[in-house]
Amino acid sequence: MADHELRSDCAIAATLDIVGDRWSLLVVRDLLFEGELRYGDLAASAEGMSTNILADRLRKLADAEIIEREQYSERPPRFGYRLTDRGRAFASVLDAMATWGTTYVAGTKRRTA
Amino acid sequence: MADHELRSDCAIAATLDIVGDRWSLLVVRDLLFEGELRYGDLAASAEGMSTNILADRLRKLADAEIIEREQYSERPPRFGYRLTDRGRAFASVLDAMATWGTTYVAGTKRRTA
Repeated sequence: MADHELRSDCAIAATLDIVGDRWSLLVVRDLLFEGELRYGDLAASAEGMSTNILADRLRKLADAEIIEREQYSERPPRFGYRLTDRGRAFASVLDAMATWGTTYVAGTKRRTA
Repeated sequence: MADHELRSDCAIAATLDIVGDRWSLLVVRDLLFEGELRYGDLAASAEGMSTNILADRLRKLADAEIIEREQYSERPPRFGYRLTDRGRAFASVLDAMATWGTTYVAGTKRRTA
């Protein structure tokens, strides 16, 4: 993982430094449910992420070794993305968020694989 | 809670709309461990949140009924903040983040009450 300065020694703050934004954990969610995905699959996610945000978050998640990419076509060069072990370990965070959301935000539901 | 348009019906996306940033869950963390806190206590948190970010997040968390404020001094008017039931329910999200952080980010630790 890319070195970065910790805000504190708090494990929660460190986690938020990596995935504390509105989009990163949605990429992790999609890869958790779907396995390997291509850029276009991720761009087509329900929340309509703009391609510049998606490209930025993919780069950051790869730097943090949350996701890894694999080339599936040489010409043109095309890549698929999947979670590392470190990325799959976010399942418990996402599960807790899904429980919170379904409990407290009307009109939402938990996705099932 | 303030009405807002959902990005999708996904409970995870809805949760991230409310607390998906680097700071909001740190405020929830501090209130979870310390109970009621004053503005100055929150501003003195280990991560050194700027006062304009703190004021913005307190307003958003209050709008979302994650926290509530209570006036403890009339003159000058001063307020304390505490979690609502809806806010305390983030404990499981924070717990999962603490587990992820202590497992995958060197130099971090889980805070104990």
